[in-house]
Amino acid sequence: MKSILPAGELNQFFINPESMVDADVDFTGTIYKIKNLGQFSFVHLSTLAGIFQSVITGECSLKEGSSIHVWGKVVTAKLKDKVLASKTIEIQISKWKTLSTHYESSPFDLTKPELNIHNDVLFDQRMISLRHPREKAIFKIQEALGEGFRRALRKRGCTELRTPKIVKEGAEGGANIFELNYFGQPAYLTQSPQFYKEFGVGIFERVFEIAPVFRAEKHNTSRHLNEYISVDAEIGNISSFEEVMAFETGVLKEVFEFLKLECSFELELLGISLKEFESIPSLTFKEVKVIVSREFGIHEENEPDLSPQEELKISEWALSQWGSDFLFVTHYPSEKRPFYAMDSEVNPEESLSFDLLYRGVEITTGGQRIHEYEAIVNKLKRRGMNPEHFEFFIKAHRYGLPPHGGFGLGLERLTQKIIGLESVKRCSLFPRDISRLSP
Amino acid sequence: MKSILPAGELNQFFINPESMVDADVDFTGTIYKIKNLGQFSFVHLSTLAGIFQSVITGECSLKEGSSIHVWGKVVTAKLKDKVLASKTIEIQISKWKTLSTHYESSPFDLTKPELNIHNDVLFDQRMISLRHPREKAIFKIQEALGEGFRRALRKRGCTELRTPKIVKEGAEGGANIFELNYFGQPAYLTQSPQFYKEFGVGIFERVFEIAPVFRAEKHNTSRHLNEYISVDAEIGNISSFEEVMAFETGVLKEVFEFLKLECSFELELLGISLKEFESIPSLTFKEVKVIVSREFGIHEENEPDLSPQEELKISEWALSQWGSDFLFVTHYPSEKRPFYAMDSEVNPEESLSFDLLYRGVEITTGGQRIHEYEAIVNKLKRRGMNPEHFEFFIKAHRYGLPPHGGFGLGLERLTQKIIGLESVKRCSLFPRDISRLSP
Repeated sequence: MKSILPAGELNQFFINPESMVDADVDFTGTIYKIKNLGQFSFVHLSTLAGIFQSVITGECSLKEGSSIHVWGKVVTAKLKDKVLASKTIEIQISKWKTLSTHYESSPFDLTKPELNIHNDVLFDQRMISLRHPREKAIFKIQEALGEGFRRALRKRGCTELRTPKIVKEGAEGGANIFELNYFGQPAYLTQSPQFYKEFGVGIFERVFEIAPVFRAEKHNTSRHLNEYISVDAEIGNISSFEEVMAFETGVLKEVFEFLKLECSFELELLGISLKEFESIPSLTFKEVKVIVSREFGIHEENEPDLSPQEELKISEWALSQWGSDFLFVTHYPSEKRPFYAMDSEVNPEESLSFDLLYRGVEITTGGQRIHEYEAIVNKLKRRGMNPEHFEFFIKAHRYGLPPHGGFGLGLERLTQKIIGLESVKRCSLFPRDISRLSP
Repeated sequence: MKSILPAGELNQFFINPESMVDADVDFTGTIYKIKNLGQFSFVHLSTLAGIFQSVITGECSLKEGSSIHVWGKVVTAKLKDKVLASKTIEIQISKWKTLSTHYESSPFDLTKPELNIHNDVLFDQRMISLRHPREKAIFKIQEALGEGFRRALRKRGCTELRTPKIVKEGAEGGANIFELNYFGQPAYLTQSPQFYKEFGVGIFERVFEIAPVFRAEKHNTSRHLNEYISVDAEIGNISSFEEVMAFETGVLKEVFEFLKLECSFELELLGISLKEFESIPSLTFKEVKVIVSREFGIHEENEPDLSPQEELKISEWALSQWGSDFLFVTHYPSEKRPFYAMDSEVNPEESLSFDLLYRGVEITTGGQRIHEYEAIVNKLKRRGMNPEHFEFFIKAHRYGLPPHGGFGLGLERLTQKIIGLESVKRCSLFPRDISRLSP
């Protein structure tokens, strides 16, 4: 018998390398870039604490892409370059040991400040192209966003749910649903955890989930992914749908604060600056139609939804009017919202729902939901839908649900708009679209 | 234009109700249980901070299952009952407002200390049965386990990945894979993020993911789920597979500490006590075979794997010998491990891999992986597999990977064994098995 003791914690060098000046250190990393100047070499080492410049005096036969264990001393330095961003220390290496090396050099130069390769190559070679510091930075930012949401939601008393992805009924319905054979019966991949998070409200009052959802949409555009990460929250005992908007505003504020703390290196590397915000302006759907018609000559007043063009223009207008990257749009026409959306008592053609636009695109759909059994049965009937098909869902209403509402947010789309990338696919580690299923 | 200000933070009552004695409070909750004694009523209110006993003096027509907003005063009390566990405060309610009520009473008595209904009913009526405090407690414990893993892994420098669930190739292969039609081409639901987390090591060095995986296993047993949550970690620049075991030991220690902090109420309610541990004993596969044969008369020496019976017996033996609920078993025969597992140089018939048993069942499989390109190509060929079919995977090896290893852990199974439930299905919010696809 052996006794396995705990290990694997990060040593002080990784936790706070700047505090280690003059100390002898040893750590592992991968050689990102090497510049041999004969008498000495500059080695950029990619480590768990980021990329560090290190110096080896004398002969050195190390290669880019090799993983090594190094021993050396931390010295002060003022470094600023396109991949290191700002760094204040450098490592003087005295000894090293090679841990692994490659069979072949990378098919493209990972040491250039920008990869500049076509998206098809970028995605085909994803296991390699993601090693570029700028690509990595996208996903460190996305990770911080996810973690920021989780912290803000947990802090507000939300319980984290883990709901099934293989389902019997789609929450959104329609054709954009993937079907599979589940031991002889038809099943689907979930488009949204909507039904389950409403169950969750009846159990835990406030719930959230950050998990994949699947949409079999046939558009291959820069706005769509067939598999993406949905940040979903649902809260009970609300008194209006505006409470959900205020809740999301508070959450987003903390998410942005967390991002700035966690990802100062990545934000600097990618040249991103984020606006502070104290509140988010809100317009009704009707107000938006009036403004885009008046200000931009877009005459789609009779369309029951906003076109991408209208979303873009009203966002530009909100930015110029109020300096806000965000804009809530409320009271969408009921006909364009799902059956579970609560409609206004004053005007049943308007739903108590909202979208949140950020830098020109919709990142969230949310609103208050119907919580009373008779109301949800009547709504289904009015829409010509059979309540029996939704029996499993409306059982929650039958036995009582608090008044509730919530929102869903696309994590890749938020990441994309924060960074300013041309396609949402750049923000999925291994994107799925109509023609891409690998890697 | 309206301006939406942040809201939704928990008030002090929810954060630390015990600090609010004598204070006037108002909050929302759902009536879990009500006992009308004429002159006054005891109302158990389920809130975001747990269940509280409250008292209403005089007439009261409130019903179980209603959500209400209450105003009142916090008073000291020593309460101990089967659903409240220990509570030191009570609320004197002076005013209330009904927010919602139900259409019909719950099909079973949610106020009994134990539900005592058959699993089929429990799962068919999941949206209601989960409202029982003991069922809820299972998922608060599971949430804390997931969060504990995430914290311990992030603290160790692991980057959180979000990898695709629709894939072109299964990591495990075999028949237990769900197939779907992906815009005319065959695709599969992932059985494991293995390939992607190995890519992740080449990008971030240390990575993890907590996400659903899918297994089309046809056994309908108390050990199996067709969709479950896998906690996966993979770490680079290791020097041995035992480093992975030491890493997992450190992580688990912190997970258990976090669970005790987060879920003292739930652990008390379910009567769970958890052993402290400083290390985890480890036996080789061959040692286990010798012991189960000698001590328990199980003669399966020639089987290249451990049977459930052997896992149970060797766990009992480890508990009696060393007082440990955990046991690592190492050096599994290579033939039973996937192609990417690294084999021992001394004895290539043994893999540098391990399972972790907990209270009689395997909760983790892990080990060191092959990181060199020529080695992985040769291993595939030796197994009669075509390296071209795995081109997308071994590209990572071709362009260089640090030596690495990792583990996967089934979250529901760990939850089950901690709580001591008879079936793992009890630990899935909405379980999926061969005959269950809804709710």
